Amino acid sequence: MTSDTTTEGGRRLSPGQRHEQLVAVGVEIVTTSPLDQLTADAVAERAGVSKGLVFHYFPSIRDLQAAVLRAAMEELLRALDPDPQLDPSERLKGGVAAFVRYIDQQPANYVTLSRSAGADHRLHEVFEEARERVTDLITAGIGIPDPPDGLRLALRGWIAMTEEVVLEWLIDRQVPTEQLVDYLHDALFALAAPVHHLAPAVEFPDPG
Amino acid sequence: MTSDTTTEGGRRLSPGQRHEQLVAVGVEIVTTSPLDQLTADAVAERAGVSKGLVFHYFPSIRDLQAAVLRAAMEELLRALDPDPQLDPSERLKGGVAAFVRYIDQQPANYVTLSRSAGADHRLHEVFEEARERVTDLITAGIGIPDPPDGLRLALRGWIAMTEEVVLEWLIDRQVPTEQLVDYLHDALFALAAPVHHLAPAVEFPDPG
Repeated sequence: MTSDTTTEGGRRLSPGQRHEQLVAVGVEIVTTSPLDQLTADAVAERAGVSKGLVFHYFPSIRDLQAAVLRAAMEELLRALDPDPQLDPSERLKGGVAAFVRYIDQQPANYVTLSRSAGADHRLHEVFEEARERVTDLITAGIGIPDPPDGLRLALRGWIAMTEEVVLEWLIDRQVPTEQLVDYLHDALFALAAPVHHLAPAVEFPDPG
Repeated sequence: MTSDTTTEGGRRLSPGQRHEQLVAVGVEIVTTSPLDQLTADAVAERAGVSKGLVFHYFPSIRDLQAAVLRAAMEELLRALDPDPQLDPSERLKGGVAAFVRYIDQQPANYVTLSRSAGADHRLHEVFEEARERVTDLITAGIGIPDPPDGLRLALRGWIAMTEEVVLEWLIDRQVPTEQLVDYLHDALFALAAPVHHLAPAVEFPDPG
């Protein structure tokens, strides 16, 4: 990674560094405007490089958007679990609160994204991977790192419920944020009772 | 509705009847092939009319697809609540079972639809209306016909969970259908405990 391929943008960067810089610039841009309107022009201008250079790293605008979405998802996933030392209930509540905060900061973007993701397989894959990793976070958190399929199924359901409830809540915010977070937290533990239909041997920890 | 405008298709039909016939033919076609591949040609051929006549009733293919989706949704909604005389728990279980059966019969279609609906506002509206009406069905079923916003929010969450769990279940069907239905039924009643965070005064009936 020491070969400088370009001096555009006022800095000599290796291909890896340049790739990372362009994605970071894209992530910055989409905090204030929708991802599906992200253009190579906007990234080139803010990074101080040519449009051609952006296309050299991202052959199509969809490739660029998918890379930016993936980077934004990584950021979100880190925010969801800041302290693995907490007990499962506190970790879960912190994670739900971080999710609500994240969407609250850029609601239009999340709504657009989660809807348009269905129609584009690259965006869809990023969402799918994020949901799988949230499932892993939860199963690790409740002390069942190698969960049966039925438990994963139930957790995917809870994640879908959480996304939907937060997106619907954004429309008019009739309920205080704290109540919303408490509901989603308690809902996961409430599902511990019926989950035996899907995964007979599983025991959830007490919400504490 | 007595003015016959055409004799195409071997029958003299009023505009209302013709519209209904074309939609019904579309619904037939999409039981075996994806809605997003539905064409005016296919509908014209099966209805025995000209393609021009199809476009007379549906100016764009998206209009035709949205009308067909709406008709299919009406069919599904009727199937979800065949007997309002049953008690809330039996009605809910019957509704969930009907939903699983419906998707089970044409899984590829439902998956494609629910994903592509995000990108097309007409399809999205049909899904949204269906979800609102399922919410109404449930609130009427549990004896809370004029629910507070917080309860509607919780029910929209359960509906999203149900859609996700059934779609994920379709991938490998690791759990018997009956367990799946029991889980989703019991999950709704399990959410009665935490729902006080969103709707303090609401009381769910006992699952019985």
